[in-house]
Amino acid sequence: MNAPVSAIEQLHLELPDLDWITDPNRVARLSQDFSWFSPILKRQLADKRADTVVRPRNEDEIRRLVGACARHRVPVTVRGGGTGNYGQAIPLQGGVVLDMSGYNAFLWARPGVGRAQAGIRLADFDREARPSGWELRCIPSTFRSATLGGLFGGGFGGAGSINYGPLAAPGNVLGVRAMTIEPEPRIVELRGAEALLMHHRYGTNGLVLEIEVGLAPAHSWLEAIVSFDSFDRALAFADAVTAAPGIVKKEVCFLASPIPDYLTSLADHLPSGCHAVLLLVAEFSESTLLELVPAHGGSVTYRKTAAEVQASNRTLVEYTWNHTTLNALKIDKSLTYLQSAFTPGRHLEQVRQMEKLLGGEVLMHAEFQRSMAGETTCSALQLVRYTSEERLDEIIAIYRANGVRINNPHVYTLEGGKAGGVIAPEVIDMKKRFDPQGLLNPGKMQAWPAGA
Amino acid sequence: MNAPVSAIEQLHLELPDLDWITDPNRVARLSQDFSWFSPILKRQLADKRADTVVRPRNEDEIRRLVGACARHRVPVTVRGGGTGNYGQAIPLQGGVVLDMSGYNAFLWARPGVGRAQAGIRLADFDREARPSGWELRCIPSTFRSATLGGLFGGGFGGAGSINYGPLAAPGNVLGVRAMTIEPEPRIVELRGAEALLMHHRYGTNGLVLEIEVGLAPAHSWLEAIVSFDSFDRALAFADAVTAAPGIVKKEVCFLASPIPDYLTSLADHLPSGCHAVLLLVAEFSESTLLELVPAHGGSVTYRKTAAEVQASNRTLVEYTWNHTTLNALKIDKSLTYLQSAFTPGRHLEQVRQMEKLLGGEVLMHAEFQRSMAGETTCSALQLVRYTSEERLDEIIAIYRANGVRINNPHVYTLEGGKAGGVIAPEVIDMKKRFDPQGLLNPGKMQAWPAGA
Repeated sequence: MNAPVSAIEQLHLELPDLDWITDPNRVARLSQDFSWFSPILKRQLADKRADTVVRPRNEDEIRRLVGACARHRVPVTVRGGGTGNYGQAIPLQGGVVLDMSGYNAFLWARPGVGRAQAGIRLADFDREARPSGWELRCIPSTFRSATLGGLFGGGFGGAGSINYGPLAAPGNVLGVRAMTIEPEPRIVELRGAEALLMHHRYGTNGLVLEIEVGLAPAHSWLEAIVSFDSFDRALAFADAVTAAPGIVKKEVCFLASPIPDYLTSLADHLPSGCHAVLLLVAEFSESTLLELVPAHGGSVTYRKTAAEVQASNRTLVEYTWNHTTLNALKIDKSLTYLQSAFTPGRHLEQVRQMEKLLGGEVLMHAEFQRSMAGETTCSALQLVRYTSEERLDEIIAIYRANGVRINNPHVYTLEGGKAGGVIAPEVIDMKKRFDPQGLLNPGKMQAWPAGA
Repeated sequence: MNAPVSAIEQLHLELPDLDWITDPNRVARLSQDFSWFSPILKRQLADKRADTVVRPRNEDEIRRLVGACARHRVPVTVRGGGTGNYGQAIPLQGGVVLDMSGYNAFLWARPGVGRAQAGIRLADFDREARPSGWELRCIPSTFRSATLGGLFGGGFGGAGSINYGPLAAPGNVLGVRAMTIEPEPRIVELRGAEALLMHHRYGTNGLVLEIEVGLAPAHSWLEAIVSFDSFDRALAFADAVTAAPGIVKKEVCFLASPIPDYLTSLADHLPSGCHAVLLLVAEFSESTLLELVPAHGGSVTYRKTAAEVQASNRTLVEYTWNHTTLNALKIDKSLTYLQSAFTPGRHLEQVRQMEKLLGGEVLMHAEFQRSMAGETTCSALQLVRYTSEERLDEIIAIYRANGVRINNPHVYTLEGGKAGGVIAPEVIDMKKRFDPQGLLNPGKMQAWPAGA
């Protein structure tokens, strides 16, 4: 009768009114994300499980949950839509998964700025903001299920980064409301550069409750596919549309052959073997776009007005960024992918060079965007015909030897990804301040606490 | 009684109902523009006079006037607000000045696109468009008096080119309605690239009646001055604001010491001897801008909200672009100016190099913008302490020797300016098509008709 209870059981006893999820299948599902895109992460992370999942409905529930976890020293892993690809939402040492999807109120939109609770889905945010003429500056291809908190905590940017750069570019995130992980949690509003210290840290250095973001004018976006016979001409077209300052756009995605062949639901619009550029441009820029198409030897093989897109509930955004990978994986399970950042100004040359060196094994998919410094460039989410970890490492080494930066998506630690092995001291200071006990998904940020 | 009448007299007799201006003082004034910024053009053009000026009120009046001019072989020089600096509106061989300022109806604005008659003042266009949430993509500092037709026919861009590049970038002008200069004038709608063949040809290859332009979202623009002790830090700040993709902006103007000292009406906001950056940023980007200021060692010495700007009727736009020159000339009549386009990516280095070589004699004024190819760069409208034509030529030669392009504003022919000596064959074809008799300000485009 007086058998010792576990810390998890104590949480359940102390906070019976919270929305706990304990069904093992649901806990297992809510302990995973889309890191299975990587055969390496799949092997490393497939058995990771939370002990329990909780889905708070308001700030008070979050505060009580976090306070109890701190008192009982239970790890906390924050989860949004679970669309991350590096195990951002996977608890490495069990504990509680804090599913933020129920904490999802849209708070307000003013000209150029909006604010919502972290668990709001990006599609819901945009639906709330658009009547006032504004929308999110950048959305990942997972916008239907991904949350604002997930984008902030583990995302890069997406469609719209062609104008505003990555989410990390100053001005795209204006502030966050964050909670400390302590027995008596404190709540702090962080603004500007300080708020960005919690960006892309996978929820390891603070629990983000609300996010205030810069918004973009919500234009009526025309969606189009332009198909080409030639890799080089398709690439040059994508770059020209991106660079053209008078063409208002949201997305330019270059898919080299044979990637378009994997997009079977668009097969009617993608001639077999073609190279394709998927585009979102403002409807008022269509005539200017169309002048560029014949000049580059392309053909428009798909065209939907904004109204048609809305009525069909199908958007080309869900064929870009990592949805390209998802769609290809549905057809060919042996594929995986890489992520690389090309050098602005040399980006076309580098893309062509990598195609020359690795074409056939690495299938080129480039997303055009502005860099942090505002330069026109592209990054890639190349598909890779996976054979072994060793060969994947060789491919990465070939990229690096050619001056291309690889943001390795086959590593689950914060250090292993974009951070390039080193976490900035300010980020670690933020972790000390917001998570002094090191309870936020221990093992994810290896620099703190030491030896975790 | 039957003394032969001149062609001009015949025009007056045939079209007595037109609004003719014959008072010699008014004709003299309406035969001049702002080319007096250049001591060379002032000397070359000061005595140029139309024989008469006409101010049509509708298309029918324009058609009848043009038809009569063609029949009587009278030169026609089209004039907007007369704010050009290369004698764009100055009749080289007399004839009729066609003052378009009465042909000024705003036609319509739709999302991203607007259309008006050529004689509309840019300020009036924006006043009409803004209630629908849109405004012109770029305006010169002369927007109060300059016309849309003048901007198209003789302008470059201006505030807003930091986003959309020059007016010549595809998408900024979508179409024009133009009239041929023939006994029976024809009216043609030109779209896209074809319309641009009449851009910046000083009205020499077609009479533009209406212009359809791409519009920009009309944000509430905050106006600010940031002052610096250091040339290099002010320049770096201006570049950083320009490049930052998350800061929504309309204007970034760098004025090296001693230029701010010439802006006497802003003296309270410009510490003596300072280097200054004049800015228009969206109000919602202010907090992000302010994070950059201390990082570059600057101080905000002027700040007005959009509402304050509107209430005061003073805008910093009227201290930028060639209004910088105008303001300085009011203080020091010995000044003149140059125009140069720096190389994107090397632009800061080139600005610093030219300051090192010519500082004190050439006063640096750089306007940040996107290039035709979408790159972040700057051009300059440097002030020059004028001594002689020979020295001005030497300065131009020094710039060119350092790889900087000079768009010489001391030459009045089309060939001598940005065209760099050569007029594209398509432009000449357009002239043959729209002005087969060569009546549009003969002498301005020297390539056609041959020997004019």
